[in-house]
Amino acid sequence: MFFIFVIGTAGCGKSVLTAALEKWLATSELAVTVVNLDPGVEDPPYTSDVDIREYVNYGQVMHEFGLGPNGALVASLDMAVSHVDDLREEIIDIGRDYVIIDCPGQMELFAYRNSGPLLVSSLRNYDPAASLYLLDANIARTPTGYLSSMLLGISINIRFLLPQISILSKADIISEEKVQEVISWSTNPFLLQDALDMTAEGMIKEYSSSILRILEDIGSGTSLFPISAKQMVGMETLYAEIQRVLAGGEDYLTYE
Amino acid sequence: MFFIFVIGTAGCGKSVLTAALEKWLATSELAVTVVNLDPGVEDPPYTSDVDIREYVNYGQVMHEFGLGPNGALVASLDMAVSHVDDLREEIIDIGRDYVIIDCPGQMELFAYRNSGPLLVSSLRNYDPAASLYLLDANIARTPTGYLSSMLLGISINIRFLLPQISILSKADIISEEKVQEVISWSTNPFLLQDALDMTAEGMIKEYSSSILRILEDIGSGTSLFPISAKQMVGMETLYAEIQRVLAGGEDYLTYE
Repeated sequence: MFFIFVIGTAGCGKSVLTAALEKWLATSELAVTVVNLDPGVEDPPYTSDVDIREYVNYGQVMHEFGLGPNGALVASLDMAVSHVDDLREEIIDIGRDYVIIDCPGQMELFAYRNSGPLLVSSLRNYDPAASLYLLDANIARTPTGYLSSMLLGISINIRFLLPQISILSKADIISEEKVQEVISWSTNPFLLQDALDMTAEGMIKEYSSSILRILEDIGSGTSLFPISAKQMVGMETLYAEIQRVLAGGEDYLTYE
Repeated sequence: MFFIFVIGTAGCGKSVLTAALEKWLATSELAVTVVNLDPGVEDPPYTSDVDIREYVNYGQVMHEFGLGPNGALVASLDMAVSHVDDLREEIIDIGRDYVIIDCPGQMELFAYRNSGPLLVSSLRNYDPAASLYLLDANIARTPTGYLSSMLLGISINIRFLLPQISILSKADIISEEKVQEVISWSTNPFLLQDALDMTAEGMIKEYSSSILRILEDIGSGTSLFPISAKQMVGMETLYAEIQRVLAGGEDYLTYE
């Protein structure tokens, strides 16, 4: 059983990618369980097999405890921890090979509280797992936006300690030329440095070489995968990378 | 007029610090305007002078557009951008020297969307500004939590490009000894390296020296200020640092 956690900032396209990946895997006759971990989501673009909303009722938490939307989301996620064994049991009972977990809309509620890493490690237990970290093309299209998103990715990686695949999400909202430029920054730090030198200022200019070094060190071996979940573009390459990361390159295809 | 933006992840104590800083400045007979920028907050622990909720009604956005809590928060903040001139006008009209801006509860909605940096740059305009980046003591108490929080801080810094002061928030929830240990990591990367070597694993161990280098490069000159807003501990040191950052060390005291 392979666990794939889909993470990224609010609005970066996690749920749409989850739906697209499920569809792609299903079309390839692979058995997939889809898990929704966001207590506050309204209408995810997929049918979840396992859903935190069956255990934690966001609206009820809000009213019962007199919390605002922020507080209620935080409280709901903290409550989710006590149901993690139920969630895992459901997943195990379904017993399909791939488990895609659509993580909460607001990443920070998940990553930068103690509940998130606890949920991740308890859900996957000792099964192989990877995370898909989505960079929002709206942000990563500029050199500083890209830099900031990559550093956020490293910070997230340290929280979850899973093999992490970086994805340029919603690639369809920027031009193909821009996509290629952003991808080139991920493969060649010098191109990013050039782009930063042309657009950035002050603090960025001063520290860019030291920031680039960290991206080079940590980012080496992983490139950035452009995906348009909406147009189902890039799914095959993503699947190959998931295989590579989860299984050391072996393709654990299992047919239902 | 000096703008102080209070930023950090959900639940890190932004509003409580805002209230405490206002109180401290007022006690020192300094004129303060407090701005709430969170459309979704229920009962902030201060009386806001300027409030985004007077322009954007989160509940209404939720119902009118049929959005869930995540979507409604995102939409509310995006809408806030169109009112930034009104907000700034209000602030200018009040005309006090210090403007403390309590940023939205969920930092990522603010930092990793285009609306946030736009709100910050339009609100401060060309006035001197700094940001207080709060590290949650709940997370930063462990070596990897600290590392992750500091990297997040650098990522945030790149988004807002303001002089940034790092604060160990809610210092009262950990022991004084632990506070000193965390502070020691900020002043001496070797101590952090030692702590990581003892507790961390895999990827962290492999990359810790490159991550530490970036903290050393960028973090140099700024240390971490422990604050207990609840117990009003550390406020004087924080104020001195704000002065140093905002005015290059000069104390722009102005009495009402």
